[in-house]
Amino acid sequence: MAELLKGAPVVAALNAKMMEDIEVLKSKGTIPTLAILRVGEREDDLSYERSAMNRCTTVGVEVKNVILPSDVSQNTLMKELDALNTDDSVHGILLFRPLPKHLDEEAVRKALNPDKDIDGITDGSLTGVFTGSGEGFPPCTAQACIEILDYYGIDCKGKRAVVVGRSLVVGKPAAIMLMGKHATVTVCHTRTVDMPSVTRQAEILIVAAGKAEALVKEYFSPGQVVIDVGINVTPEGKFCGDVNFDDAEPIVNAITPVPGGVGTVTTSVLISHVVEAAKKHCK
Amino acid sequence: MAELLKGAPVVAALNAKMMEDIEVLKSKGTIPTLAILRVGEREDDLSYERSAMNRCTTVGVEVKNVILPSDVSQNTLMKELDALNTDDSVHGILLFRPLPKHLDEEAVRKALNPDKDIDGITDGSLTGVFTGSGEGFPPCTAQACIEILDYYGIDCKGKRAVVVGRSLVVGKPAAIMLMGKHATVTVCHTRTVDMPSVTRQAEILIVAAGKAEALVKEYFSPGQVVIDVGINVTPEGKFCGDVNFDDAEPIVNAITPVPGGVGTVTTSVLISHVVEAAKKHCK
Repeated sequence: MAELLKGAPVVAALNAKMMEDIEVLKSKGTIPTLAILRVGEREDDLSYERSAMNRCTTVGVEVKNVILPSDVSQNTLMKELDALNTDDSVHGILLFRPLPKHLDEEAVRKALNPDKDIDGITDGSLTGVFTGSGEGFPPCTAQACIEILDYYGIDCKGKRAVVVGRSLVVGKPAAIMLMGKHATVTVCHTRTVDMPSVTRQAEILIVAAGKAEALVKEYFSPGQVVIDVGINVTPEGKFCGDVNFDDAEPIVNAITPVPGGVGTVTTSVLISHVVEAAKKHCK
Repeated sequence: MAELLKGAPVVAALNAKMMEDIEVLKSKGTIPTLAILRVGEREDDLSYERSAMNRCTTVGVEVKNVILPSDVSQNTLMKELDALNTDDSVHGILLFRPLPKHLDEEAVRKALNPDKDIDGITDGSLTGVFTGSGEGFPPCTAQACIEILDYYGIDCKGKRAVVVGRSLVVGKPAAIMLMGKHATVTVCHTRTVDMPSVTRQAEILIVAAGKAEALVKEYFSPGQVVIDVGINVTPEGKFCGDVNFDDAEPIVNAITPVPGGVGTVTTSVLISHVVEAAKKHCK
């Protein structure tokens, strides 16, 4: 029986820390505030927005919603973003992507104030991850993986870590962050030859393959810690990860569940970035 | 007998390509120009400067030398840098580091115009490497490793690559560039446990350990391609790499010599960046 690395206690610990910080900020007259900038009514966005707003309410972060129609012009969107960029009462900006196809998403991304880039999408934030300078904020999902390892006391130093996936949102930043924690890190991807032989060598395995239950029995070995980043819905309407849980669980030492694992921590990491941004702003 | 992956033919090929580009640029009235900004008279700097200037002469790149005394003030240095940043006839700026201790090197680095950052030291260039956006220029040594692999027709796709070293100058950018070439990449460093067991698995091994002849017999296995980034001088005054060449050579399939390997290609990569910068400027 593998240990279940549930997200809920990680979230509770992050919340407790945030609430302390928010108390201090409020005593200084600052209310940490998240602006959510949404274009259109995509179901994914609405669901993440609800969940982020609930978390904000729990810890005491204010939310400012800016909702634009799906046919909004580039000009109007840029103006709204600029207003949030320069609004001193807003500490973090969450911009839902992908944007509708008629909009220049890259221009919008580049225009986002890096100090408010709590989702880690600007060049400034990516540079901060790559150099370890602490500038900006790491992509929330990558950091959520690290928060789970930290919370459960899993020391990375000298460990063999394997990351499946090389995206800018999870794979690459997670790999760099694991290097910073002194793990020996391997990155696998779709072009990797005989991936099971690589993943079986991992002591810590982070899976962001982007494919439902892609990692089956042969990918795992005893003693492993498995962090499953995937969130997929099966044709039967069941949530599942990128790991075949029933295959992995009897073999490995510890594994995150889906749902209730990385995903739930990711939202809290996002909110914690708002609080961090407010703290930096207050200095 | 391992194949010797000498730098000289790689340099010749890079030079030939550059000279074609320079011909076109000159026909449009642009002479690619490198500014070398040196503070003080460090022997390392002088030697690299001579070598860069010789290469420039060979291909037809102009050099502008700005030499400041070792007790130069921050203010004067920043003014000189700013003049080069805004001088339209200068396409690339090489800034020797480390600067004398009384100077704020980070401020100087951040002030460098990313379009002229041919040595890949600005945040813009590092972001370009990390995201693969093509912005800025990769650190020259990391790119030199890739140029050698390309020149000798070593396909990285699906290969197991191991990089020893996690610096921002070589290890991390080389790892990201190898991922971009679809290798399965592992990064080792001083905290890696049982490093020989990891490096022996490599099909392509890039060594930037920062320690003379640190990799001995047990680190190698048959069939490997070894790129040795190290340049060290033994107590007897002999140049050597981070690989013990006599140990590795009988085992592996191909290996770069030291001297005459990565180092010599690095200088040509630097000059090629000046030409690329001039081409971008001319567009």
